[in-house]
Amino acid sequence: MLEWCSGDSSHWVTLSQFEIFVKIYLHQTHHSIADLDGIFSYLEEQMGPQKSPGLHLFPEGQLVGYPLQDLYLDPSFIGSFHKALEKFNAFSTSMEREKEGEEETLFLLGGPEYEYSSRSTPRGIPQNIYNSIYAVSPGHPLKPIYRKQLLPGYDIFDEPKYFTPGTENKVLSFRGKKLALLICEDMWSSPSSPCDPVSLLGEEGAPLDLIVNLSASPFHLEKDHMRTERAKEVCHHLRAPLAYVNRVGGEDGILFDGGSFVAHENGILAKAPFFEKNVLVWEMPSSPKKENVSPPKVPKARPRKGAWESLFHFRLDDRNPPQIRPLNRDDLDLALAAIQFGLREYADKNGFQKFLVALSGGLDSALVLTLTKLALAPGLTLEALSMPGNFTSPKSNELTRSLCEKLEVPCRFLPIKFLHASSRQAFLSAFDSPLEGIADENIQSRLRALFLYARSNQDGAMVVNTSNKSELSVGYSTQYGDGVGAVSPLGDLYKSEVYQLAHHINDRYGSLIDPEILGRPPSAELRPGQKDSDSLPEYPVLDAILEGLTSYGLSVSDLVERGHRREDVEKVRRLQSLSEFKRSSFCPVIKLKFKSYGFGHRVPISKKL
Amino acid sequence: MLEWCSGDSSHWVTLSQFEIFVKIYLHQTHHSIADLDGIFSYLEEQMGPQKSPGLHLFPEGQLVGYPLQDLYLDPSFIGSFHKALEKFNAFSTSMEREKEGEEETLFLLGGPEYEYSSRSTPRGIPQNIYNSIYAVSPGHPLKPIYRKQLLPGYDIFDEPKYFTPGTENKVLSFRGKKLALLICEDMWSSPSSPCDPVSLLGEEGAPLDLIVNLSASPFHLEKDHMRTERAKEVCHHLRAPLAYVNRVGGEDGILFDGGSFVAHENGILAKAPFFEKNVLVWEMPSSPKKENVSPPKVPKARPRKGAWESLFHFRLDDRNPPQIRPLNRDDLDLALAAIQFGLREYADKNGFQKFLVALSGGLDSALVLTLTKLALAPGLTLEALSMPGNFTSPKSNELTRSLCEKLEVPCRFLPIKFLHASSRQAFLSAFDSPLEGIADENIQSRLRALFLYARSNQDGAMVVNTSNKSELSVGYSTQYGDGVGAVSPLGDLYKSEVYQLAHHINDRYGSLIDPEILGRPPSAELRPGQKDSDSLPEYPVLDAILEGLTSYGLSVSDLVERGHRREDVEKVRRLQSLSEFKRSSFCPVIKLKFKSYGFGHRVPISKKL
Repeated sequence: MLEWCSGDSSHWVTLSQFEIFVKIYLHQTHHSIADLDGIFSYLEEQMGPQKSPGLHLFPEGQLVGYPLQDLYLDPSFIGSFHKALEKFNAFSTSMEREKEGEEETLFLLGGPEYEYSSRSTPRGIPQNIYNSIYAVSPGHPLKPIYRKQLLPGYDIFDEPKYFTPGTENKVLSFRGKKLALLICEDMWSSPSSPCDPVSLLGEEGAPLDLIVNLSASPFHLEKDHMRTERAKEVCHHLRAPLAYVNRVGGEDGILFDGGSFVAHENGILAKAPFFEKNVLVWEMPSSPKKENVSPPKVPKARPRKGAWESLFHFRLDDRNPPQIRPLNRDDLDLALAAIQFGLREYADKNGFQKFLVALSGGLDSALVLTLTKLALAPGLTLEALSMPGNFTSPKSNELTRSLCEKLEVPCRFLPIKFLHASSRQAFLSAFDSPLEGIADENIQSRLRALFLYARSNQDGAMVVNTSNKSELSVGYSTQYGDGVGAVSPLGDLYKSEVYQLAHHINDRYGSLIDPEILGRPPSAELRPGQKDSDSLPEYPVLDAILEGLTSYGLSVSDLVERGHRREDVEKVRRLQSLSEFKRSSFCPVIKLKFKSYGFGHRVPISKKL
Repeated sequence: MLEWCSGDSSHWVTLSQFEIFVKIYLHQTHHSIADLDGIFSYLEEQMGPQKSPGLHLFPEGQLVGYPLQDLYLDPSFIGSFHKALEKFNAFSTSMEREKEGEEETLFLLGGPEYEYSSRSTPRGIPQNIYNSIYAVSPGHPLKPIYRKQLLPGYDIFDEPKYFTPGTENKVLSFRGKKLALLICEDMWSSPSSPCDPVSLLGEEGAPLDLIVNLSASPFHLEKDHMRTERAKEVCHHLRAPLAYVNRVGGEDGILFDGGSFVAHENGILAKAPFFEKNVLVWEMPSSPKKENVSPPKVPKARPRKGAWESLFHFRLDDRNPPQIRPLNRDDLDLALAAIQFGLREYADKNGFQKFLVALSGGLDSALVLTLTKLALAPGLTLEALSMPGNFTSPKSNELTRSLCEKLEVPCRFLPIKFLHASSRQAFLSAFDSPLEGIADENIQSRLRALFLYARSNQDGAMVVNTSNKSELSVGYSTQYGDGVGAVSPLGDLYKSEVYQLAHHINDRYGSLIDPEILGRPPSAELRPGQKDSDSLPEYPVLDAILEGLTSYGLSVSDLVERGHRREDVEKVRRLQSLSEFKRSSFCPVIKLKFKSYGFGHRVPISKKL
């Protein structure tokens, strides 16, 4: 493997005189975090006697998964990782090296690189950890050759917590082709970044034959479009195609969607599917012979938005007052795929073979049941549980039954009326004071959580949460009641989007969700005649205000200026602020949006409103 | 206010010819996060007609609190902050400037500095946020003069997420004295830090009269000692005293303990108390006249440990197998003060006037009740709730009663036997399968949570969690059962330390906790004859293994090499890994240690074990 050094232009000219095709394999892998056995077995298989000659690209963090968070620092994990490296190196060095003239094979893989101070052994304390690219070819050991320069720390990212940034670009030569290496964020440099690897490559590295970006890029609905647009800009700037490999995996609520691609400046040349393991093969065309001239002057990269600016993004239209832009059909298809994938991933990685959904007769739980049904894969089952109480309407029970029949989901009924009455009695005896108001409402919700988890404990079922983003935002739920669950499929969809997704499913799959469920006014049914709109602004108003406030996009004043009522906006902000404690005990939310609750949302509970 | 520039040595020599005393005020303030009214009122009071001339120092982040997390990015908050700045500037510029010869007054305060691209107004999107020091004096507006250079990202810190680092040291002149400015982490530079402000000050800034460090430094038991030792090193290196101001506050589980001080190279000259608002006044002595000589050569700072190394720290002794070093009396006093402060802070900042503790008859809940009783302040009350079940021994009920009598805490009794039986019946009817095993154990714990929260909902009481660090580590608790609560006072103390703290309280306050409670074998009493030791290694073994594993200190192999049984170590690691989902829905833990659960603990739930 020959390395190209900036300034030495004679070198690549010699190599580029071979006119050869290079076969490129983009391995969109799918391994659990820290599944060292699975990860290294796959690599051995790819490098073994059945190997395909060519350039094999793997995602960022391929060697361990991504993101490991504190596991990066865990001495037991570090020990296992180094053992796995040794074992793999023993294997790869035992492979026969390629002979002169034979087609070469090169693997480029992401993984952490631990650096130790001179006195320490690798079992000691690392001085630095880099987020690196390793190279390996048959007959050689793994060798780190590039260190990620731009370490994202916004939203769900915590890279500066663990990694030290690299400081040098890397261009290497493979079969006469000049390849520039980038890791994920390196491609997304901005004026406020500490450096700009893409611009520097333009100055030092050109002309290039290929840009390689190994990524672990988290999904949201707009992400693929952003990646493609940015890839085209980079290709334009560096005058070379870009091979972008992304991992596949659901890590708690954070999804890695694959969708690896090869781009050139005008579009996409090849693309892998979303949310599934895949190897995309692309044959790099022969390029015109390069003459021994100095690298061409390339234009400066177009100015990009500031680092903060990319966070300030919201889906509101220009009406007065603004409303949320509806999700289009592509968005809804993608959301559907993402939620199904997220549910299966959580179940699979945490050892669940069964889902359990509590049904109320309302839309949220009906949609969750439908989504979970659609997510089922071989080896996975689903059960519904209906727990009617004092204020559950007969219509709710009827709709619950018919939904389960239509979806062919077994449904259990566990009325809580008697237990509710007994709880009131026990409370009255203990406190000489009747259970009433919010305390009485919540106890029903908590009794339901109690039985959901009793069933879960009994047969190992995974409780799927049914809260939506609107409720979660304003705390319109009971902590340790309907707020429970292992993972939240709707926690990143506002109530208005819940309706859209339900209608979309009915369009796609025939009317699975009864129009009557879609037409009922939302209610928690915890007291007689209760409606969500008793406590909250109507959902279209609520959701628009929330989107402005939670996306970092608009302030209270901005929303008022654009036509929302000040009392609504202030009430929503107040409720949102007061309910932080509920979100802090909430389960992982399947991330669908730019800005979501869950790991990337960090707001103090204790604060002045 | 004159600024000193490195290289211009003539300047300070002129000023240092005045032989004057400078009075220094270290304002160890205590404000809620984002309490702009409270924060700016205090500053106006200090700068108003009753002001004390001299140098007034305030903590890091004084202008807004610390840490704000995502609030730093919130447009509504940014808007309010800029309005508050304008209002304060109108006030400060309206104050009369000091006249020639009059004693000067200077305020140095920490706060965020928002930087906007040229086209944006301050209402737009910030390009950068710095963690800065502002200066202000009567007749002048607030002006940012120094930007923090070292932004911590380890453990509970997320500064690189929000802030851009500064790149320049700052030395300023006040009444002829040369003051070097640092913010918190700037003082803790290490070889792997991107720069070393202290060494640079030694090269460029010497000779100095005073080093100022404005901090928001989170508490743990060893922190004060570390601060003092490091302060002495810095004083030695820079040949000047150091004034260190730290904020006071409980921010969810993270405590800022105050303990501001003035140090010189041999020790502490003045010190403020812990965990309370205070203004420490120190009169800076006149220094010998400085001659017009080039700054003396100062020794390089002593080599410091690497950034990672400071995280790898554990309290295990050298025995074979190692055991946890017991907390000494000072540690226990400090832990006692910290827990009381943490409980009061959470209640105060979240609007609670009453604590609620569930008692089991065991040690953890008895200790929590005692700690909460000791934490009471005017306006705060406490209630206990005992909820005996099928397997609660008569002795447990007796000990609960006598504890409440001794502590003079009202106790309610709410037996759950009948509800437990009714729940079993309801479950059997719904699922055609009896409630048994772990499902039956947990339903008791969840019934108790249900009533705790019913009481909390009814009268606004704050539920205090009773889990300890050993249980929390291995998941020996019921999610949504005994795992509930607003805040966890024991979540950073292993079971063996729970015993130590209980004995210590009995020593300090007379035997509040019955020796019988201290002598009982730990049991959850959820099935007949149950003991913790049925499921877990004995606590001294468990706790030692946990301390090795959770402090990043030792790997499984290290612990086995040092004499722990491999099967114990592997079991503990496995349980710890499997119970991540419980910790992810757990309440804030009052942080007492180097490495704690809560905000600074980030481990994926979904992973390969």
